[in-house]
Amino acid sequence: MTDELQDLIEEVVDATKTEQSRVISKIVAMQEPEEVALLLESLPLEQRLEAWENVPEEDRLGILLAMRGDPRESILDTMPLEEMDSLFQEIDAADLIELAESLPNRMVDRALKVMDAQQRKYFEGAQKYKDDLAGHWVTHDFLMLPINAKVRDALRLLRREIPEYVDTLFLVNRAGHFSEAVKISAIMGAPDHIPLVDLSEETFLTLNADDDAVDGAMKVQKSVFTALPVVDEHGKLLGRMDIGTACELVNEYYEHQLMASAGMNEDEDLFAPVLKSTQNRAIWLGINLLTAFLASWFIGLFEATLQQVVALAVLMPVVASMGGISGSQTLTLIIRGLAMGQVTSANLPALLKKELSVGGLNGIIWSIVIGIVASYWFESAMIGIVISLAILANIVAAALSGVVIPVVLDKLKLDPALSGAVILTTVTDIVGFVAFLGLGSLLLI
Amino acid sequence: MTDELQDLIEEVVDATKTEQSRVISKIVAMQEPEEVALLLESLPLEQRLEAWENVPEEDRLGILLAMRGDPRESILDTMPLEEMDSLFQEIDAADLIELAESLPNRMVDRALKVMDAQQRKYFEGAQKYKDDLAGHWVTHDFLMLPINAKVRDALRLLRREIPEYVDTLFLVNRAGHFSEAVKISAIMGAPDHIPLVDLSEETFLTLNADDDAVDGAMKVQKSVFTALPVVDEHGKLLGRMDIGTACELVNEYYEHQLMASAGMNEDEDLFAPVLKSTQNRAIWLGINLLTAFLASWFIGLFEATLQQVVALAVLMPVVASMGGISGSQTLTLIIRGLAMGQVTSANLPALLKKELSVGGLNGIIWSIVIGIVASYWFESAMIGIVISLAILANIVAAALSGVVIPVVLDKLKLDPALSGAVILTTVTDIVGFVAFLGLGSLLLI
Repeated sequence: MTDELQDLIEEVVDATKTEQSRVISKIVAMQEPEEVALLLESLPLEQRLEAWENVPEEDRLGILLAMRGDPRESILDTMPLEEMDSLFQEIDAADLIELAESLPNRMVDRALKVMDAQQRKYFEGAQKYKDDLAGHWVTHDFLMLPINAKVRDALRLLRREIPEYVDTLFLVNRAGHFSEAVKISAIMGAPDHIPLVDLSEETFLTLNADDDAVDGAMKVQKSVFTALPVVDEHGKLLGRMDIGTACELVNEYYEHQLMASAGMNEDEDLFAPVLKSTQNRAIWLGINLLTAFLASWFIGLFEATLQQVVALAVLMPVVASMGGISGSQTLTLIIRGLAMGQVTSANLPALLKKELSVGGLNGIIWSIVIGIVASYWFESAMIGIVISLAILANIVAAALSGVVIPVVLDKLKLDPALSGAVILTTVTDIVGFVAFLGLGSLLLI
Repeated sequence: MTDELQDLIEEVVDATKTEQSRVISKIVAMQEPEEVALLLESLPLEQRLEAWENVPEEDRLGILLAMRGDPRESILDTMPLEEMDSLFQEIDAADLIELAESLPNRMVDRALKVMDAQQRKYFEGAQKYKDDLAGHWVTHDFLMLPINAKVRDALRLLRREIPEYVDTLFLVNRAGHFSEAVKISAIMGAPDHIPLVDLSEETFLTLNADDDAVDGAMKVQKSVFTALPVVDEHGKLLGRMDIGTACELVNEYYEHQLMASAGMNEDEDLFAPVLKSTQNRAIWLGINLLTAFLASWFIGLFEATLQQVVALAVLMPVVASMGGISGSQTLTLIIRGLAMGQVTSANLPALLKKELSVGGLNGIIWSIVIGIVASYWFESAMIGIVISLAILANIVAAALSGVVIPVVLDKLKLDPALSGAVILTTVTDIVGFVAFLGLGSLLLI
């Protein structure tokens, strides 16, 4: 995607004002909705809205669906009500579920009013489950037959239509409960009169509607099938999660992990309006400011010491940095393990022991190195000893915190990817400064 | 996956020594290879190797394939040569490509020697392309017909076998060049004598073997097809990239982004041996130590000032933290944009302007807040003014660095996800300390 997209962006941005709309309409007519979506996201707000005007009506819904939340809203926010009305008049349930969060409630209600009964039922079914549950992301265009159907029934069905990402037929019992899955490839060569159950998969995973959506999506990705059935708490077949939806959910999960560590959300717009972006980031800066002031306050306890041994002030960043960096390594590893369900109370003691050993060893190595450098730099063996001990203490504390903090946050149902790093560096800053300046007060004065 | 996996881990770890192998063999016999792989990765080394002994021979290859690189090697490293021999004797090209990096060269050669000619050709074909190119990840089990084939030919082929993740048939010309794709669903209902070209997709994306593998994988995920054809530089059809491979590549890419920011690689083992883990992390700590000493050296230039105004030492972490945090927000956004190809020389000026505006505004807000707090804390309006100006300068410098550093690294073909944060915090530390202590020297003494 990369090179081609970059050429497109350049073409749009480099065009003169008069040429621009011609260039844009040429591009948007030629490209897939996903590519136009990426292109629109890459344009500054003014050019984005101008480009949007050139998108043919019939492509608009698909492009909106392919965009990230915030840039999508930048377009919806300026859209006249009549245009919204015509755009969402024939929207189906799946698309409305995807867009519902970006739309004013009033618009969702209007879209629902003109929606046909079946689609409305699907929409309402999805709303029964929160958007982090598999039930929210069910697709309804699947192939289903009664449990006693034969190969000839299946072939008749397959000749009519195969929806996208369908490679199996679902067999249900009279109550509508999911019972078996039969691969289309198994049906194709089989004699007409064979019961489908004879061809069904021996083991076939089903998802529960109240399973975690991302867990379910990962199961779909690993299943070697293009979709897995989703059932409600009674075993009734609601629909399926297809691999297209699964990829979107998993990618969004990873983008969340990446953006959360910097206090942003995965829908962040590259060209968010300055005021909105300032506001979002100000909150994160404010939280971090509190932790920085806390660290400063601890330093302030040692003002008298700092005045007498200014070398301590000079070396403070080294102590803080070594703790922060080694802690964030442990933290990153544990957060990934927690997300994959690989860190549990059962292997936690072993994990803690390993991380403390690694931290201890690295603590010893680097405390010696740093101690020697500091001794020569400030011509004082005692300063070397003080920083050595502080570094060792801080790296070990960092290993401990890197394991304990995310596990506790996870237990409290807080997101370790979002707040783990802030809390960790607060701990390592404070431990580092107190150990370093405290030892300095004891040994150097 | 999460809950179930956690139960399994607990069952294994909690079992007494004598019970353990019984529990393990029960679990590994019941579960999918992907789940056993996750379970093995979650066990401390000793228990992992014990569990491995209980895995039935016939499941071993599948489980190894599903594991991350480092934990997989922890098992391969202890495997007797004869066992390796029997394990890899009937390996196919795709699996050997996946495992090749974890295996000793000698073992790859032995596996190749007994491999059938066709599979060996596939293996060698993949090795022509580096593992970050689409050509390396081609699968060869696709359905192909000559361009003049009819529906009846297609149905005959479909009745024989449909490989996994196949939803289209590829039509090739006499030279073996990819020409058209026909959906299986379009073929199913069509009359026997219709030429397949009449049913083919109007537009169908093809990947080039020397396209970036992750870009290609993202195209597959977004294509609504379960695979896209991969052609060589002459247009010859080499095979396809299926959505299963695409998911693995995309997920690995995201794990790389997450782990790289902490200086680790995506194959990192939760229970890596202590020495190996210490060594890997020591390198990263060493690099960061150099940058910390650099920052310290800059602080050292202002020793005399610090001695006279110890409040400056107390407040240093606040200046550094505000720059580091706001810079990392910009950096995270730009790294994502670069990875998606959404940041180019064309929109860079607009992006820089936006980030500098956001930085400027947040700089003004927080420099006022921090200035007031510092004035009261140290009962000196001048200290408030000094820290205000330093914070403003540092946040603006952070916005600039957050845009420029990853763009330059990307131009130099270096990985911004790996080194961006290190360089950024070095810049913000130094700018912050120099601005703060420099202004302090000028205005407070």
